[in-house]
Amino acid sequence: MNFINSLEHAWRQNNSLVCIGLDPDLERLPANLHKADKPIFEFNKGIIDATADLVCAYKPQAAYYAAANAEDQLLETIEYIHKTYPLIPVILDAKRGDIGSTAAMYAREAFSRYQADAVTVNPYLGYDSVEPFLRYAAKGVCILCRTSNPGARDIQDLEINGKKLFQHVAAMVTANWNQNGNALLVVGATYPAELAQVRAIAPNMPFLVPGIGAQGGDVEAAVMNGKTESGTGMIINSSRGIIYASSGEDFAAASRREAEKLRNEINRYR
Amino acid sequence: MNFINSLEHAWRQNNSLVCIGLDPDLERLPANLHKADKPIFEFNKGIIDATADLVCAYKPQAAYYAAANAEDQLLETIEYIHKTYPLIPVILDAKRGDIGSTAAMYAREAFSRYQADAVTVNPYLGYDSVEPFLRYAAKGVCILCRTSNPGARDIQDLEINGKKLFQHVAAMVTANWNQNGNALLVVGATYPAELAQVRAIAPNMPFLVPGIGAQGGDVEAAVMNGKTESGTGMIINSSRGIIYASSGEDFAAASRREAEKLRNEINRYR
Repeated sequence: MNFINSLEHAWRQNNSLVCIGLDPDLERLPANLHKADKPIFEFNKGIIDATADLVCAYKPQAAYYAAANAEDQLLETIEYIHKTYPLIPVILDAKRGDIGSTAAMYAREAFSRYQADAVTVNPYLGYDSVEPFLRYAAKGVCILCRTSNPGARDIQDLEINGKKLFQHVAAMVTANWNQNGNALLVVGATYPAELAQVRAIAPNMPFLVPGIGAQGGDVEAAVMNGKTESGTGMIINSSRGIIYASSGEDFAAASRREAEKLRNEINRYR
Repeated sequence: MNFINSLEHAWRQNNSLVCIGLDPDLERLPANLHKADKPIFEFNKGIIDATADLVCAYKPQAAYYAAANAEDQLLETIEYIHKTYPLIPVILDAKRGDIGSTAAMYAREAFSRYQADAVTVNPYLGYDSVEPFLRYAAKGVCILCRTSNPGARDIQDLEINGKKLFQHVAAMVTANWNQNGNALLVVGATYPAELAQVRAIAPNMPFLVPGIGAQGGDVEAAVMNGKTESGTGMIINSSRGIIYASSGEDFAAASRREAEKLRNEINRYR
């Protein structure tokens, strides 16, 4: 099953637009895991097993594994999801972006080494930096458009012929880059007006939407402005708000409660 | 010694603006290394030992190590350079870019895990995505401005109030982002006119200049348009043109010949 199909299946099957970001900061893991042989993997496994019927995707953030010298536990986490919950796709959040020959290596990292179902990429280097990912037609490629952080304004909001840069990116991806039908856009929940502007440009494209939870994005505004006509079209990510819901041994049960709460809140506005 | 000082020292000491890109593609390594325990490290070591008196920096490209599951050999390569040639700085070419809390993890990857002296980053997410790197005042932060690939035009050349996006990035970095004096700009050699435009905005800032060699950039035009008044200010990178100068057992000697040729050609125009 290709990424878009498995995403649509998971939306339906779990009646959920929630994606959980697996961003395991070693300093924030529950004390009972500190002595584990593979603390990051055990932490992820706890959360995954507690939430797999509540989500449409998981999104490990590569930076946390890279900082911790834990590429092996990233791989194990992805393998575990694929083996145990084969219908839930995995998005590797890596935000890669480089010239074509190098981008091909990053695509190999994401899709061959880690077997991710989708990856996030940065559009600053243009089409030939994204094409080596898009070429994997069964995989999803989530292209940064309007990000969720305060600094998003610095570059992405610069105006070109009366439109902002992120609108140009959305238009370019929709009109020219998406020849395999496997492109998605990353649009932050923290800027609901911008989310509506991007939805107007790309009425049917799935969006990866970070910024809910610790970053403070409003669920109602995000869903109302980001959903497609069918009430889907969004992968709404929360990382810290779910995975650190409790810092104790009950972290997995606590993450389930938060994930369920978020799913239900989102579904109220679909 | 901080990055900028050690770069200036290496420029002088080796009378060279050449940077060698350590982009080891397993499929292109000489046959005699295929059976080595650590073929990538052995390949890099051969090139480093043959060229350390001819360069101002080495630049391993993270993607090649990530694709090959060879983070350990990346680390060993950087440790080897630091131990054996402590005056030659190492730039980790990773082109990271993410929201602040994640960028802090990528900075930890580059500067704590790998002990790189500098790193490349992508400006698309704005100041708060680059600041976690700039905060390491002794390290260099090479911010993508105008890249060397054909697709660079797609986004970086969009016009905002009569200036192109890459000019805005250069102006923003020079005026606002460089509070610790440790920012550099990445400007491709394949577009010499753009190199001159960026130099006009940032008269004294060091540039990391890819695009010479396999990518076809012209040395004379790049140096004439990119050098500072003192005839330095550039880290001119060649990867494939040097490291694959020979595909045989003589790869190290061949890389020395190419590095020396490039150094001398560059010096003719300084």
